[in-house]
Amino acid sequence: TLQEAEVVIFDALANSALLDECDQNTELISVTSLGNTPTRQQNINNLLISKAKSGKLVVRLKGGDPFVFGRGGEEAEALALENINFEIIPGISSSIAVPAYAGIPITHREHASQFIVITGNEDPNKNSSQIDWELVANGKATIVVLMGRENLPSIVHRLIKEGLDPSTPAAIISDGTLPTQ
Amino acid sequence: TLQEAEVVIFDALANSALLDECDQNTELISVTSLGNTPTRQQNINNLLISKAKSGKLVVRLKGGDPFVFGRGGEEAEALALENINFEIIPGISSSIAVPAYAGIPITHREHASQFIVITGNEDPNKNSSQIDWELVANGKATIVVLMGRENLPSIVHRLIKEGLDPSTPAAIISDGTLPTQ
Repeated sequence: TLQEAEVVIFDALANSALLDECDQNTELISVTSLGNTPTRQQNINNLLISKAKSGKLVVRLKGGDPFVFGRGGEEAEALALENINFEIIPGISSSIAVPAYAGIPITHREHASQFIVITGNEDPNKNSSQIDWELVANGKATIVVLMGRENLPSIVHRLIKEGLDPSTPAAIISDGTLPTQ
Repeated sequence: TLQEAEVVIFDALANSALLDECDQNTELISVTSLGNTPTRQQNINNLLISKAKSGKLVVRLKGGDPFVFGRGGEEAEALALENINFEIIPGISSSIAVPAYAGIPITHREHASQFIVITGNEDPNKNSSQIDWELVANGKATIVVLMGRENLPSIVHRLIKEGLDPSTPAAIISDGTLPTQ
């Protein structure tokens, strides 16, 4: 798909070598510079729409899977409202692959018949938390926290407070799958 | 990796066209015929070990991701006990990709900040159930049940009994991503 793209709109990527697949005439647009402001997503949506309406074959390139905390759903909705055809191409999600590269199967018949994936980028002490920490802490699931580094102390404190055994084995992985993992 | 393999040991696959990547001299071994008996996994482990010890480059090919209810963890342990080197190659998990192909993002900022994946191939009425049905029913997570078709009525009954709102939107997808989806 990258080889056929006329426009590629991308975020900071796990591996920029992906862009080497593109034709030299492909327009490459990084949206990382748009920052993390509330208007950022709207600006991205508008860019996708305007490029598509100009008749170009547009690829929106993300790291991981677009529907795992990737806002792919929001972008798909924006395109649907404008009657722009699109397809979603699933990706290898870090929620599964990064533990694997650290030697950790997220399910195992003898240990875990379920796994739960949560976003760690909201402060678990906020009352507005969308995560049910009591259920997460007390379930029998493998717990995967994505983007949890910044809030790590709060997350650990909250899970233990809600009942998770402090001796539960845990791994903290950054730069997953990279030489610097 | 399939192009380099000398032996490929595979289950029933989503798409047998994957095997077209193999060299014509590659030994292709289906283990689907081993059935689902308790000794099946042991037989597969033994096959992996004997082929590896004969000096061959062996690929163990699975559908989806090997660590999402794929018993990849058990096979990796068996190889590690025999000091056989291996690497795990993550896959596109149906738990994320199949909902995507049905138009359902498993996370969305306005709807779900977490998702939980469970196996549906055990009867939820059994006392030995390894699934925490209360957690699954009462969390704010998108619930993905893999291999749940056979136990569908029991699963639905159990989730509602544990507190899940009977009006919760749900999709049942079979033959995911195939023309017959």
